[in-house]
Amino acid sequence: MTLPEPPYTAVLFTSTRTAGNEEEYAATAARMEELAAEQPGYLGIESARDADGFGITLSYWLTPEDARAWKGVAEHQEAQRRGREEWYQSWTVRIATVEREYGG
Amino acid sequence: MTLPEPPYTAVLFTSTRTAGNEEEYAATAARMEELAAEQPGYLGIESARDADGFGITLSYWLTPEDARAWKGVAEHQEAQRRGREEWYQSWTVRIATVEREYGG
Repeated sequence: MTLPEPPYTAVLFTSTRTAGNEEEYAATAARMEELAAEQPGYLGIESARDADGFGITLSYWLTPEDARAWKGVAEHQEAQRRGREEWYQSWTVRIATVEREYGG
Repeated sequence: MTLPEPPYTAVLFTSTRTAGNEEEYAATAARMEELAAEQPGYLGIESARDADGFGITLSYWLTPEDARAWKGVAEHQEAQRRGREEWYQSWTVRIATVEREYGG
């Protein structure tokens, strides 16, 4: 994933899935990635989930305000509600500013 | 994972594994988690990897200097070298300051 030079905002979302509802969950997760990509200030998203249900999603935004606006998008809010009620045993959101990046 | 109130430092490590060497890789990854936990300023680590080999590891540190010192630990440097040469097709490190956290 190619992102602009830092600084930019990263949203670190970690979660543990409940059992079941896999198809519906996967469809909503895919739809949220698509919807996020249409939002102002969107830079990218990447995600990994272990076989045991622990997952990390990183989304990247130009500014903290862009990340906050995405949280408030109506269809995303509905997905967040279902996540809390049905799909996640537990979850954490951390809002961070990326200051440096390197790779190989 | 319970962390102190922000701000603190997060290291976002994303990588795509090469095929093979799974046992050796897993042993080194476990050893690095153990070694990280002994370092000054260590707050926590969490990790997820997809079946297709894409993984995200988040490590949390009290200060950016603590994160940088961990990068320089000799045994960790040797693991980084093997990662670059043998275990990862590609990898990225992002250094970030966590400013806010909430969860459920």
